[in-house]
Amino acid sequence: MAIPIVFASLSEPKSYQSFLKMAKADLSEATAKILPILAAVHLEGDTALRKFTNQFDGIALESITLDPQSIKTKIPNNVAEAFLVAKANIETFHKAQMRQDWSIKVDGNTLGIKYTPVPSLAVYAPGGTALYPSSVLMGTIPAIIAGVKDIQLVTPPQKEGLPEILIWLAQILGIKRIVTVGGAQGIAAAAYGTESVPKSEFIVGPGNVYVAAAKSYLSGQGLIGIDSPAGPSEVCIIADETANPMWIACDMLSQAEHGEDSSAILLTTSKMLAEAVSKELEIAFQIRPKRLAMKQKAIYENSGILVFSKMEECIAFSNLLAPEHLEIQTKDPYFEFASIEHAGSVFLGRYSPVAMGDYISGTNHILPTAGGSRIYSSLGVDTFLKRVTYQEVTKESLNKLYPYVKLMSELEGLDEEHGTSVKVRYEENI
Amino acid sequence: MAIPIVFASLSEPKSYQSFLKMAKADLSEATAKILPILAAVHLEGDTALRKFTNQFDGIALESITLDPQSIKTKIPNNVAEAFLVAKANIETFHKAQMRQDWSIKVDGNTLGIKYTPVPSLAVYAPGGTALYPSSVLMGTIPAIIAGVKDIQLVTPPQKEGLPEILIWLAQILGIKRIVTVGGAQGIAAAAYGTESVPKSEFIVGPGNVYVAAAKSYLSGQGLIGIDSPAGPSEVCIIADETANPMWIACDMLSQAEHGEDSSAILLTTSKMLAEAVSKELEIAFQIRPKRLAMKQKAIYENSGILVFSKMEECIAFSNLLAPEHLEIQTKDPYFEFASIEHAGSVFLGRYSPVAMGDYISGTNHILPTAGGSRIYSSLGVDTFLKRVTYQEVTKESLNKLYPYVKLMSELEGLDEEHGTSVKVRYEENI
Repeated sequence: MAIPIVFASLSEPKSYQSFLKMAKADLSEATAKILPILAAVHLEGDTALRKFTNQFDGIALESITLDPQSIKTKIPNNVAEAFLVAKANIETFHKAQMRQDWSIKVDGNTLGIKYTPVPSLAVYAPGGTALYPSSVLMGTIPAIIAGVKDIQLVTPPQKEGLPEILIWLAQILGIKRIVTVGGAQGIAAAAYGTESVPKSEFIVGPGNVYVAAAKSYLSGQGLIGIDSPAGPSEVCIIADETANPMWIACDMLSQAEHGEDSSAILLTTSKMLAEAVSKELEIAFQIRPKRLAMKQKAIYENSGILVFSKMEECIAFSNLLAPEHLEIQTKDPYFEFASIEHAGSVFLGRYSPVAMGDYISGTNHILPTAGGSRIYSSLGVDTFLKRVTYQEVTKESLNKLYPYVKLMSELEGLDEEHGTSVKVRYEENI
Repeated sequence: MAIPIVFASLSEPKSYQSFLKMAKADLSEATAKILPILAAVHLEGDTALRKFTNQFDGIALESITLDPQSIKTKIPNNVAEAFLVAKANIETFHKAQMRQDWSIKVDGNTLGIKYTPVPSLAVYAPGGTALYPSSVLMGTIPAIIAGVKDIQLVTPPQKEGLPEILIWLAQILGIKRIVTVGGAQGIAAAAYGTESVPKSEFIVGPGNVYVAAAKSYLSGQGLIGIDSPAGPSEVCIIADETANPMWIACDMLSQAEHGEDSSAILLTTSKMLAEAVSKELEIAFQIRPKRLAMKQKAIYENSGILVFSKMEECIAFSNLLAPEHLEIQTKDPYFEFASIEHAGSVFLGRYSPVAMGDYISGTNHILPTAGGSRIYSSLGVDTFLKRVTYQEVTKESLNKLYPYVKLMSELEGLDEEHGTSVKVRYEENI
């Protein structure tokens, strides 16, 4: 077995089409399973939360929420330092995203935008083997900067108690409440609210297929806002002959490490690089055999190397793919980047592996997957801000514009009331 | 009958709760009906479009699309002038919303955001009595400014031919293609693409319940992006004793004119104003009896006047309501506006009736309804822009930050590949 290497050409869609079909999580089965859970939490509130937690986690909850500030935590100094550096970098990059209110004069009137935060947020943090404390920083910091007032952390309870790192992160982020309910029932608690859990208008953060199905269903009902629907992780790498094949293999395996449905696509003009990366992948499988079957399935079945004759074709294919992560490892990566239209987060140059953005550089790692970057953005301060438009019309401008409103409202059959509401003001001094 | 007047207090939720339940379009029945239509268009393409157009519109389509530039139109000069003034004002306000790419240094690395437009857009324009040419301007102009390249207009065919105003608007907006298919089948054509109709990644614009259901369903499937789900229209008016009761009645009736499920809520501290507005509504029903039953149902059953003892309570109630349109007609409307958190579009002062924004002032009239302004914004340039984040990490910064990435990836069980992808670069010169 080896990673597929394909000599592709943009003018022959058959040569690349199979690599455009990125894994999309199929949520229909999970949705059918969670609907009764959502309904029960909606109807029975805390009672349902206790019942499901007993059933799924084997835990009899005493209190459903806890105040992280009331708990003593002891985190190793070096771990604390790492997270504090990440927090500072994420804060710096996201503070630069904050919006300023503004207004302009248009045809004599004042028109403007005032930015206001969504009122409340639940950040979901999975438990068990999928404990990703870094995602708590990514989900919470942009909301704090946007000014979201009511932020709660939702996470499954653990028999041995919640991970100290989660509680400590809640403390340093100023989160006032942890809801110790996981899965679809945790999402339902936040979306509907219960006796113990205040309703959240927005829910973000990774989770298993039941969490994803619950978020997606409740968002479709207009009940909550969510980050973009999350599928399997993917990376696309555009590289030329100047790139280091061993490093590229490592970057591809970083995605493969997330699961067997993850995808890593290398686009290059260099046949030599393609073959060298394929070899480096095999070497890596030998020297780093942890979770080998999973990584091999991701690389052999869901990944590939496409060799195009021109760099322009690599870029065009990447824009068709609209990847979650895009690395550009070429001589002048900014040159290729200028033509990139759709990507969640882009990593330029030799020293910018995706893992730097996953953890520490300051960009957000909650990103649209499965081609979603054609229409969605990464999580950011804008995710939690609304644009409230406003206007103050002057008497002079109303007088000038009334004849137009009269004509347009007549044309739309709305002159009787829409037209009249302007006319009465127009006639004020007549 | 008369509009309900209630003396309300924030400390007694029972006094106002019934006015918080705004009409939300129930799409479940319509969704069941449109699913076979969507499936047929997906499978059979143009054949299905012809079949449904025959069935629902009684029209045998020759060509499914037409090029507006190929048609001669003759619009009265004064109507053309009105729409050109509206277009210019909308362009001015929306151009001010355009984003500039930026980057900053964070911990030695370059982190930035590049804004790119969504690739394609379909603007839906209903036919028949719901012909709203103004909505074509509102849906199209922000996308053009954002840089969306492929914009098509989707609208039902008419036995007497398409309204000239629609074709003319397509011409002046530079729209290259009109798809003459309406309803759910028109939305499906744009969402899936057919032999004649290119796929659109984004669909906006008002429509009947089947159009709304199709947009909502396809967006839930992750197939298209849409403007926020549209329900019945609503206005909230905050006014004090300085406001003109007759004007306020006109503004309330402007919303009532949209349909019997529309809602108009007046919040005031003045009992005198409340009673005067109620009287003015009755007078208006007598002197402007067009669509009387509809307007009366909206005013008597879905609207109300709430008298609070303090202006702060009016504002707090408005924030609970999160109205689509909010008028503030008080002595110093900016003072109250400063405390407004959730509203789609706000109209300040005596001379700013909603109709000015509906048609001509320059703000967008495609707005979140049914409390959606708690988490959604009005249509704007941002609707059609994505934030592509990027970074270029330096060797020095990678070396400095590697120990943190190592610790964090170990904690998340992702050190084997995530950690290694940074480690190999760290060790480059060792």
